[in-house]
Amino acid sequence: MLVNCVAYQSGVRLEDIRPQDISDYVQRPDCFVWVAVRDPLPAELDALQEEFSLHELAVEDARHGHQRPKIEEYGKSLFVVLPIMEMNGSELQLGELMVFAGENYILSIRQHAEHGFTDVRRRAEAEPELLRHGSAYVLYALMDTVVDRYFPVVDALDDEIVAIEKNVFADVPSRATIEAMYALKQKLLAVKHAAGPLLEATGKLYGGRVPQICAGLQDYFRDVNDHLLRLNQSIDNLRDTVTTVTSVNLALITLQESEVTKRLAAYAALVAVPTMVAGLYGMNFKNMPELSWPYGYPLALLIMLVIDAYLFYRFRKAKWL
Amino acid sequence: MLVNCVAYQSGVRLEDIRPQDISDYVQRPDCFVWVAVRDPLPAELDALQEEFSLHELAVEDARHGHQRPKIEEYGKSLFVVLPIMEMNGSELQLGELMVFAGENYILSIRQHAEHGFTDVRRRAEAEPELLRHGSAYVLYALMDTVVDRYFPVVDALDDEIVAIEKNVFADVPSRATIEAMYALKQKLLAVKHAAGPLLEATGKLYGGRVPQICAGLQDYFRDVNDHLLRLNQSIDNLRDTVTTVTSVNLALITLQESEVTKRLAAYAALVAVPTMVAGLYGMNFKNMPELSWPYGYPLALLIMLVIDAYLFYRFRKAKWL
Amino acid sequence: MLVNCVAYQSGVRLEDIRPQDISDYVQRPDCFVWVAVRDPLPAELDALQEEFSLHELAVEDARHGHQRPKIEEYGKSLFVVLPIMEMNGSELQLGELMVFAGENYILSIRQHAEHGFTDVRRRAEAEPELLRHGSAYVLYALMDTVVDRYFPVVDALDDEIVAIEKNVFADVPSRATIEAMYALKQKLLAVKHAAGPLLEATGKLYGGRVPQICAGLQDYFRDVNDHLLRLNQSIDNLRDTVTTVTSVNLALITLQESEVTKRLAAYAALVAVPTMVAGLYGMNFKNMPELSWPYGYPLALLIMLVIDAYLFYRFRKAKWL
Amino acid sequence: MLVNCVAYQSGVRLEDIRPQDISDYVQRPDCFVWVAVRDPLPAELDALQEEFSLHELAVEDARHGHQRPKIEEYGKSLFVVLPIMEMNGSELQLGELMVFAGENYILSIRQHAEHGFTDVRRRAEAEPELLRHGSAYVLYALMDTVVDRYFPVVDALDDEIVAIEKNVFADVPSRATIEAMYALKQKLLAVKHAAGPLLEATGKLYGGRVPQICAGLQDYFRDVNDHLLRLNQSIDNLRDTVTTVTSVNLALITLQESEVTKRLAAYAALVAVPTMVAGLYGMNFKNMPELSWPYGYPLALLIMLVIDAYLFYRFRKAKWL
Amino acid sequence: MLVNCVAYQSGVRLEDIRPQDISDYVQRPDCFVWVAVRDPLPAELDALQEEFSLHELAVEDARHGHQRPKIEEYGKSLFVVLPIMEMNGSELQLGELMVFAGENYILSIRQHAEHGFTDVRRRAEAEPELLRHGSAYVLYALMDTVVDRYFPVVDALDDEIVAIEKNVFADVPSRATIEAMYALKQKLLAVKHAAGPLLEATGKLYGGRVPQICAGLQDYFRDVNDHLLRLNQSIDNLRDTVTTVTSVNLALITLQESEVTKRLAAYAALVAVPTMVAGLYGMNFKNMPELSWPYGYPLALLIMLVIDAYLFYRFRKAKWL
Repeated sequence: MLVNCVAYQSGVRLEDIRPQDISDYVQRPDCFVWVAVRDPLPAELDALQEEFSLHELAVEDARHGHQRPKIEEYGKSLFVVLPIMEMNGSELQLGELMVFAGENYILSIRQHAEHGFTDVRRRAEAEPELLRHGSAYVLYALMDTVVDRYFPVVDALDDEIVAIEKNVFADVPSRATIEAMYALKQKLLAVKHAAGPLLEATGKLYGGRVPQICAGLQDYFRDVNDHLLRLNQSIDNLRDTVTTVTSVNLALITLQESEVTKRLAAYAALVAVPTMVAGLYGMNFKNMPELSWPYGYPLALLIMLVIDAYLFYRFRKAKWL
Repeated sequence: MLVNCVAYQSGVRLEDIRPQDISDYVQRPDCFVWVAVRDPLPAELDALQEEFSLHELAVEDARHGHQRPKIEEYGKSLFVVLPIMEMNGSELQLGELMVFAGENYILSIRQHAEHGFTDVRRRAEAEPELLRHGSAYVLYALMDTVVDRYFPVVDALDDEIVAIEKNVFADVPSRATIEAMYALKQKLLAVKHAAGPLLEATGKLYGGRVPQICAGLQDYFRDVNDHLLRLNQSIDNLRDTVTTVTSVNLALITLQESEVTKRLAAYAALVAVPTMVAGLYGMNFKNMPELSWPYGYPLALLIMLVIDAYLFYRFRKAKWL
Repeated sequence: MLVNCVAYQSGVRLEDIRPQDISDYVQRPDCFVWVAVRDPLPAELDALQEEFSLHELAVEDARHGHQRPKIEEYGKSLFVVLPIMEMNGSELQLGELMVFAGENYILSIRQHAEHGFTDVRRRAEAEPELLRHGSAYVLYALMDTVVDRYFPVVDALDDEIVAIEKNVFADVPSRATIEAMYALKQKLLAVKHAAGPLLEATGKLYGGRVPQICAGLQDYFRDVNDHLLRLNQSIDNLRDTVTTVTSVNLALITLQESEVTKRLAAYAALVAVPTMVAGLYGMNFKNMPELSWPYGYPLALLIMLVIDAYLFYRFRKAKWL
Repeated sequence: MLVNCVAYQSGVRLEDIRPQDISDYVQRPDCFVWVAVRDPLPAELDALQEEFSLHELAVEDARHGHQRPKIEEYGKSLFVVLPIMEMNGSELQLGELMVFAGENYILSIRQHAEHGFTDVRRRAEAEPELLRHGSAYVLYALMDTVVDRYFPVVDALDDEIVAIEKNVFADVPSRATIEAMYALKQKLLAVKHAAGPLLEATGKLYGGRVPQICAGLQDYFRDVNDHLLRLNQSIDNLRDTVTTVTSVNLALITLQESEVTKRLAAYAALVAVPTMVAGLYGMNFKNMPELSWPYGYPLALLIMLVIDAYLFYRFRKAKWL
Repeated sequence: MLVNCVAYQSGVRLEDIRPQDISDYVQRPDCFVWVAVRDPLPAELDALQEEFSLHELAVEDARHGHQRPKIEEYGKSLFVVLPIMEMNGSELQLGELMVFAGENYILSIRQHAEHGFTDVRRRAEAEPELLRHGSAYVLYALMDTVVDRYFPVVDALDDEIVAIEKNVFADVPSRATIEAMYALKQKLLAVKHAAGPLLEATGKLYGGRVPQICAGLQDYFRDVNDHLLRLNQSIDNLRDTVTTVTSVNLALITLQESEVTKRLAAYAALVAVPTMVAGLYGMNFKNMPELSWPYGYPLALLIMLVIDAYLFYRFRKAKWL
């Protein structure tokens, strides 16, 4: 579905154009065309491939979707795959933004993602002195936006770990905690596999040899890379924390089992001892003087009580009860 | 066993040729010969070695089989070992495709693999403008096909982990789950050891210095490399998941043991307390007034029942039962 | 909040200047201006950006705060983010010192940190022959001070681990120990994530290509890097130790449970055996000669005592009791 | 002990020579001398050092033995330490082959190893066109042989792990399995420490800058390196498998304990319930009508049996028995 | 404390000189001065700094002590920090040897170490042809000696692990074993943190660009590096072994607990069954024919014995007892 198709000249919006006219505008050296589509049909992709003369292999990737984050050069143009992460309740939803960036065109394809990028276009058009840099600046603006939207996702995962942490330390160990930890780990894995390769890829847009169209905006791409570094550090931090919480949880389960064993044993003793005493006086010996004592029975009960009271005191002191 | 032996000129199929004529065609600068054999006998290999003047060390590798994935240069020609992975039910079967690629010949040797590569030849012959690139394009087409066939294998392993995951969270822990997890881990290890070195090897076919015959097709070999990167990421993902599931399973076993201990203790208490009370009234004291009460017996039973009911209520509340 | 704003000439303090005059002094080639602010308001930052012509992206980072440690070049000037660590009781508090360093100015922004850097200025002014190196020397002095203040933090964490270690080996395992270990791990994680990237960043200030303004002071920056290396080694050491202590703790919990099980079983045996003997003599057989013996009852008690004494002796010998 | 001392010319065996004549032959440009000794005495080493003018530091290493695998250049000559691994029953025995290789001499010193290298000499002499390459070819032949002898060792360890695997899944967990696993791990550690550094060392004999005497045989040394790569992959594979089996074993021990606990509890219940019922009818109440019923006793027994049968059925269904 | 202060010319001892004359001798191009001090007072260090014109930052490091192992260049001179490890009973003691090496001087500062280096001086003076290389040779001799003294330390730790290993497999698991393992791990950590960075540092003294004064002795420094490589391999080996032994110990504790549980359950059964039988015959039913049988009582005892004998046989067979 075509979202937008606009031609720009010297950083200023020229006009909305029809898709079939794209190739004409792309020829003009002073112009650049910015096209945004979402979840395109195969036929739409084919048409765009022809208008922009996109490389077969890159278009094939776009057709299949579910690519890993990457920045590939095809001659003078770039093919960029940016993962999009959105929290849908406590579910993590993964989409992708694919960007074809040439000297005077930019084509962005959004897939499986709710949140669009019209605000990027609005902001870019509001700053014509920056938009004058052309397609590279748009590429930067899109990357910057995609990356900035990762932070709330990581923050949501951070909140989850804090909640789990509380459960682990406050409550008795439970299946629910283990399942929550598992779900969080899987989400962190997905986030890591999105942000990690992207970090690596953006590292090639500044510093040594960079793609020609990015040459003038190295400080900006370094800034994106820096945000990704920060993000990756947060993710590693969360992963370490989850690992630690997992092992803490296991230790607490083991410790709790040990405590339960002791408590049970204490209660068992409180029952077993009177049973033994009662067993003694249940013996059928002819000659058991206590049995004929007038206060034999209450005395026996008293003995049981005293022993139990003493045991109870000892167990309390040893913190078994 | 010889599968196919065909000469091509300018990307067009010339004719099927006899193996003993190969060396004549290889001399002709405008031709290239594409030979495919499967599970060759030593004598066949010797004959092919002579026709193509293959390097002794490479042929020795081909003779022994079970090589690690690699791409080796011998002068201007390449010796490529590609692992083939096929699912045979839930068993992973490993074969290999060995390719000798020279300026105007390509020799592919398939070993221990069911599925052939005749579809690659058919597709290549249907696109003469690409086949004109010669042996390098055939090499690319073979590599691309081999790598693309990895994906269903990884998907099958992904399904296995999902099934195990369900078992772990739904059922009580069992030997079967642990054994399934072990089998899966071993398969992942095999897949990793196939895809990992291949990723590394293909990385040398584009970018910096590349073998001469691959020079014109760098974008294509980068695409193969990109698929392998994606594949390796999926495998790492699966391995991480298996590790997590393993530790979750261990935690659940420990937790379940703790729960069982508590349940058992609760039931033991429900039996032990009446036994103790019964023991009391089994004592033989002369002077036990309760024994002579008309309703002494039912009262004793009632007491036991009341205590057990109370205990039952308490255990339920504490979620021990 | 502005802390200080001073102009220097040839390493000697010239005079306190007003913020709005900064840009004048920065023009003068023989001068350099050293400005220190803490927790600046957005408006203050905007004013400083204009006076020093700071790069937009760097100022944006300063505005957001909570950056990862880094040293970035913007043209000839540097933007340095140094994490500040302070122990607040047993809490670890993280702030940051951001430094903009140009050829003839230095601007330091302190955030979320108690302890200021006026002593650095005092010491620098006391050594005009070093201060003559200009802004790079001030940058070195600030970095050196920030890094040196890490050591007491690491020492405090070292003390914590020693205390935990003692608990683990001396006491019975407890929740408190596990919680303390968790808290310590989290602090070590925070410290690591502060000191690690800084080590990497400072490594670029000596050796190969270095930012121009640091060129003359490479030995000094190498010294800062060396301190960070030592610090990182200490942190890794602590992390390894915590890991080891954690596993030791788990082993001791498991071992203790095993010991408790044995002790409980021993006590249970001491109760169960007399109960069994008593049960025997509680049987109602007509013909049980022992029952009529005059000393049958004390004999039965004696038998119980002897068996228990023997068991007690055996359990003691086997170290179960 | 001197094993062999032969001079060669143009790849053809010239004659057996006396050790004291070595230095004369080494002078002759068209000759090369191949000396093999095993477990040499210090005096023998001193003599050889003089004849070949070996470097003091290399000879010192040879004197001490137990060096790590390495390839060191001393001027134009090489000092190579190759670990020899031999299975002696289920024991792994480590020896070493030290090779001094100069432009026209090769000196091999075998230590702590049963199996000699006379077959290498025989094979080399059978192929004079290859032996013509001189000392570098002999070095290759020795390395190739040493490395090829590693494979049966790794295969033997592979068999061990398969046997352990079977035990883990088939039998109840046992000390013997844990001890076998420990022994295997230690052997794998030894093998890894032999093959790993050798892989690294051989990697310097082809590709970029290589020692002068190896220059003409790079394809051959790459082949040795390739075998080592394969070997290292097998070792890593085995190590991963051992790690997995270890954790599986631990999981099965824990699981089995949980199963045993349940089975024991079931049997305990089958005993405890009749005991309780018997206790009830052992009470001495005057007024217990059941006691006077003619079939009271068999009824009581029946009740016990019925309860136990029901419990047994329940336990079976829950797979506790 | 000054240990020695000697001037050398062409590798031959010239004379003992007074510290205050050092700077004179250092000027003479054909001389070199070798000064050894131990645990110097600040004043002594200041004096030496002036005589040798040492760099402020290096002297500051020497003053503080407890540096990490390193080799730093200050202009043409080197500052080397070598950790000294000595076993003091079963305690590991860490000291350091700091060496300032210039073109014609060498200053060694020993701290916190018992064992001196006078034997190095004696040996060096006995070989004037090597000592002629000047300060670099002395630096080599000191490094070689320091590194060679690490080996007995590692051997001592190896003996410790062998002793622990024996305990783990022979005895029942115990606190003492866990504590010994912890102590060993900490020592290995300390040794690793000493030998690892030193390995890295010495790697810069041969091969590519090396400090000027070391240029002529690269083979010697490579030899030191080789010893360190061997040492690091041994340490890694030990660390791996400790890790394995730790996990083996945990597995054995878990396994032993499982065995104890089974043994206890068996004994409990041997007591519980007679108790149940006795309970049956303790019931007060009017009509229990067995009670009147003349051999009822011995028969009941016999039944108990037979059941217990059978159970005992079964438990033995199942290896529970």
